[in-house]
Amino acid sequence: MLQQLFSPSVQHTLDLIGIFVFAISGALLAVRKNFDVFGIAVLAEVTALGGGLFRDLVIGAVPPAAFTDLGYFVTPLFAALLVVFLHPQVERIQTGVNVFDAAGLGLFCVAGTTKAYEYGLGLHASAALGLATAVGGGVLRDVLANEVPSLLRWDRDLYAVPAMVGATMVALCIRFDALTPLTSGIAAVMAFVLRLLAMRYHWRAPRAWNRRSTVREEEPSKATA
Amino acid sequence: MLQQLFSPSVQHTLDLIGIFVFAISGALLAVRKNFDVFGIAVLAEVTALGGGLFRDLVIGAVPPAAFTDLGYFVTPLFAALLVVFLHPQVERIQTGVNVFDAAGLGLFCVAGTTKAYEYGLGLHASAALGLATAVGGGVLRDVLANEVPSLLRWDRDLYAVPAMVGATMVALCIRFDALTPLTSGIAAVMAFVLRLLAMRYHWRAPRAWNRRSTVREEEPSKATA
Amino acid sequence: MLQQLFSPSVQHTLDLIGIFVFAISGALLAVRKNFDVFGIAVLAEVTALGGGLFRDLVIGAVPPAAFTDLGYFVTPLFAALLVVFLHPQVERIQTGVNVFDAAGLGLFCVAGTTKAYEYGLGLHASAALGLATAVGGGVLRDVLANEVPSLLRWDRDLYAVPAMVGATMVALCIRFDALTPLTSGIAAVMAFVLRLLAMRYHWRAPRAWNRRSTVREEEPSKATA
Repeated sequence: MLQQLFSPSVQHTLDLIGIFVFAISGALLAVRKNFDVFGIAVLAEVTALGGGLFRDLVIGAVPPAAFTDLGYFVTPLFAALLVVFLHPQVERIQTGVNVFDAAGLGLFCVAGTTKAYEYGLGLHASAALGLATAVGGGVLRDVLANEVPSLLRWDRDLYAVPAMVGATMVALCIRFDALTPLTSGIAAVMAFVLRLLAMRYHWRAPRAWNRRSTVREEEPSKATA
Repeated sequence: MLQQLFSPSVQHTLDLIGIFVFAISGALLAVRKNFDVFGIAVLAEVTALGGGLFRDLVIGAVPPAAFTDLGYFVTPLFAALLVVFLHPQVERIQTGVNVFDAAGLGLFCVAGTTKAYEYGLGLHASAALGLATAVGGGVLRDVLANEVPSLLRWDRDLYAVPAMVGATMVALCIRFDALTPLTSGIAAVMAFVLRLLAMRYHWRAPRAWNRRSTVREEEPSKATA
Repeated sequence: MLQQLFSPSVQHTLDLIGIFVFAISGALLAVRKNFDVFGIAVLAEVTALGGGLFRDLVIGAVPPAAFTDLGYFVTPLFAALLVVFLHPQVERIQTGVNVFDAAGLGLFCVAGTTKAYEYGLGLHASAALGLATAVGGGVLRDVLANEVPSLLRWDRDLYAVPAMVGATMVALCIRFDALTPLTSGIAAVMAFVLRLLAMRYHWRAPRAWNRRSTVREEEPSKATA
């Protein structure tokens, strides 16, 4: 068992912040897709809690934290409410939302990796689950909204890679017995800053080598949107 | 542990009825989507059992009831068979199907909330899982059929709200130690009647406030269908 | 507990082969959908491990094998790498890939049924989970790629039926106490050969009876692609 990284109340507050900003991104997509207020609330909940729920099911932590902590459940509802009434304003500060979302990404990849390791998974599996915790909610959000997950698309700025870096750093710290609040914080900040840089400079991952040979632009309008 | 609400055989019969009507709705969508008979059977199974399967995974009731009770597994196959041969007739009695589906909604939100509480979840989490039990199968059905879940769309009559009311009533009854077969039945009937009224008078939930400011009608044909 | 069917190393090698060929099919779809290299890796992982992950969650085998065996995790990455650089060549040998995929189908339906039974599920549930193990990854692949699962479509050669036959044979062998490496092998080969024949002669399942009466060709371009 690892030592407690942060004091419980600090960790809980960080979790709630991450949940809140992820919920905002889900609610904003729901508004764009023209969903009703319940659809907005559902998409906010799924986006905010989906990644952690998947992790908890995989490591056998049932009932998952998403269902045992009232704060985890209520926070996305507040985010949904905010978006329902203030979405033009929220969209106008989209950059701010993106910054918070990047912060959520950093927090979740670190917390996810740590929790998976505490439940006895190996290092590589813990890092993989940390990544899944960070990006899983967004994938579920896009699947429910009937869109190609933005995680998979080549025309989006790097999102998985920063989380991968953060999760890997945590796994390495565990491996070398150096996981402290400080190193955890550095890993989270590293993921956060990498994501900010990816957005600022539009870093993108390459596609398959020599792609033209198989181009079958099935959905040009989506693929190039 | 709560007292047994209904005699086991009554509860089991109610479950099978709910499973059957949900399976009909899955099979009908599969026919409309032009799936083959195996696709029809798969969609019937997923629609009927998906919500309960999700609930059982979350509360740690493994293997889930969907896989331990032969009746749960076989009932959707009968529904699929019926739809394969009689779908024009079944569609003609769509209103009847909708009434049964509303009954399934009422039964499942009550049974789901009760089971989650029996497995040790808190009241709010139990109600949330009761809702998920009732609507989860339909969401999976629409995701597999590659459609925006009808649960989330603003142009559909209220579906989640009746289930929410039923689940909340059960949670309140548990809270005030008043859960009896009678009060459970009232909660189920309440959800059932609310859903019928929503269909009859086309009750719909509002969308986000002041929506025009962000209108990006990405999929007008779907959104207004 | 069943006797070990094959020596552990043989079983492990068979598993890795199945994982590899499923990963290839996921990576190829990702290339066609124009995903970036990380999307290709994610889709390879999901396709290869999704079916077994679902089975392990249902039977309560947590953490699932997909997260405890480094080889299971790394193999799809190799497949993704191969496809990224050699996808024109891999597509040219699509027939070869399909043959391997059929082999994976045969191996997974047998291994899935056996493992589910070992975890205490009944015979029909074990066979159903064997089927889910074999086809689940492909369904998740198509859902993530925002396509109608090819499993459900009438215009695709039989895929579920061979796996169903293999899983049912294993269940029958268990029922009559005749499960040996030989009979398991026969079941796997049977599923394999049936799938090859279905591809060779374009065996397809019928659609709903008298379908014209409800034709609502919502998505002609997809439905007839």
